[in-house]
Amino acid sequence: MSLDAALGERIYFTEVGPRDGLQNLPEELPTALKVELIEGLLDSAVDLVEATSFVSPKWVPRLGDAELVMSQLKARRGDSCLDQLRVLVPNRRGMERALGSGARRVIVNLGVTESFNQHNLNRSRGETLREITEIARQGELANCRWDASLSVAFGCPYEGLVRPGQVAELAGTLADQGASEISLADTIGAAHPRQVAELVEEVSQRVPARLLSLHLHDTRGMGLANGLAGYQAGVRRFEGSFGGIGGCPFAPRSTGNVCSEDLLYLLERSGAGVAVRLEGLCAVAERLAQELGRELPGRLYRAGVWGPGSPG
Amino acid sequence: MSLDAALGERIYFTEVGPRDGLQNLPEELPTALKVELIEGLLDSAVDLVEATSFVSPKWVPRLGDAELVMSQLKARRGDSCLDQLRVLVPNRRGMERALGSGARRVIVNLGVTESFNQHNLNRSRGETLREITEIARQGELANCRWDASLSVAFGCPYEGLVRPGQVAELAGTLADQGASEISLADTIGAAHPRQVAELVEEVSQRVPARLLSLHLHDTRGMGLANGLAGYQAGVRRFEGSFGGIGGCPFAPRSTGNVCSEDLLYLLERSGAGVAVRLEGLCAVAERLAQELGRELPGRLYRAGVWGPGSPG
Repeated sequence: MSLDAALGERIYFTEVGPRDGLQNLPEELPTALKVELIEGLLDSAVDLVEATSFVSPKWVPRLGDAELVMSQLKARRGDSCLDQLRVLVPNRRGMERALGSGARRVIVNLGVTESFNQHNLNRSRGETLREITEIARQGELANCRWDASLSVAFGCPYEGLVRPGQVAELAGTLADQGASEISLADTIGAAHPRQVAELVEEVSQRVPARLLSLHLHDTRGMGLANGLAGYQAGVRRFEGSFGGIGGCPFAPRSTGNVCSEDLLYLLERSGAGVAVRLEGLCAVAERLAQELGRELPGRLYRAGVWGPGSPG
Repeated sequence: MSLDAALGERIYFTEVGPRDGLQNLPEELPTALKVELIEGLLDSAVDLVEATSFVSPKWVPRLGDAELVMSQLKARRGDSCLDQLRVLVPNRRGMERALGSGARRVIVNLGVTESFNQHNLNRSRGETLREITEIARQGELANCRWDASLSVAFGCPYEGLVRPGQVAELAGTLADQGASEISLADTIGAAHPRQVAELVEEVSQRVPARLLSLHLHDTRGMGLANGLAGYQAGVRRFEGSFGGIGGCPFAPRSTGNVCSEDLLYLLERSGAGVAVRLEGLCAVAERLAQELGRELPGRLYRAGVWGPGSPG
């Protein structure tokens, strides 16, 4: 049986724009608009929406309305929408808040390099791993799944190139602890397609490929090509941000997250099974672009899906 | 011998921004600035710069200073710079003007579909092919090489999907007539990577792969992934526009040409031999962005080339 046949072609997609995109916008959006955008994303049949972050509002003021976002979503759509939501939790305190809001799936973060983890999370990797163990325990008691994101899995602004073995080792530790998904994050847009293929191959020897997700950034334009390389290497879980919103704190004028609808369009044209409604994502991007009064980095929402008969 | 070994890894790159990019800008640039940008591109060691178009200023007012651009370049750099320049000629009259300006290499255009050729060039494909025969004869007498671009080689705004066999047939006709390079143009950004691989394979059976060039647009975000697919299929000639400038008349808010420095960065990281100085292209993009007071679509010039030790 070939790799493709074993994995199937179905893409499992998490839309991270409401968290990773909005937290980096210069503008602050009203909660009602965030909820409207999230509902548009849910209606586009993405598998998960990363809706917000239960980080301290002192650190990320843009997401200070996390509880409100969750309660409004539940009020508008019922508790069943919680199965399609994921929230970021930075620590036990955040996990308590997330569970208090009804979260059924969270994501925790670990920097692959010691320097990045220290700068980003203000503690050592060892301390972060112990915190994750506690969060996992809290989750188990509350029947809440947890995913883990490995930041700077391809390159680090402090330590340069990252050894694939280092990523595989941390991914293995997290999988052993019960992570439902392990996301390899190209936080600063350092990856190129060959590197993606090589890292996926290396990590797959330690962790089942079906657990692996790619969180790509388009900082240097290679986001989509990297996504295709990941798909070809066997990855079936992807993350992205509608309209390509988001940024890169280490390259302030740069584009951030890979654009969801552009990436899914590419994967679909490359033979992947994409259940997400691309027109729905394009509409959400268009809505935000109109609200902000400027174009977003994404391409597809401006040009439209092309097919025989399309105007161009 | 493998395909890669037969072709080598060396990329032959033509920068088309001064023609295809500037003609689509909303702003009109002074001739001195165009010349400055072209010099920056030449100094970045691209193989060719498509410097301007000898089309009637009635049709493309932005490039009405074609003669002036050429004479200023010759005055500043000497006649030897003509070996690194290419100009677009739409007809015999344009070819006369180009030769009068000292051009040593021109490019002619043919729409793959009858409808597109009629709309774009205002005559039938048969008439255009006869015009090209005349231009080729003029070139032969003046020792001027000619390249041919096949518009809408992947999809047509009027006729939809394009048959690869149709492209191969026209490419073959042009190669038989003596074209030095045949560029497959994704004029409206309809191509996806699998399609690029399939078209290159089909056309390569009629025309030597070493003659083939890819002119990609990033209208729907797939430009770079398409470029990589083309490279993997054996293409070694590429075109692009610094900063990703340009547009798409059929999708007015959309991005146009694939960004030169982003594409070359991807190809270089993928193992191709890239002689172009990427920092040089980035500097030219930055120069234009500052002049226009807005960001260009390209990514790399904002974020910078990344390598171990880079800040992000």
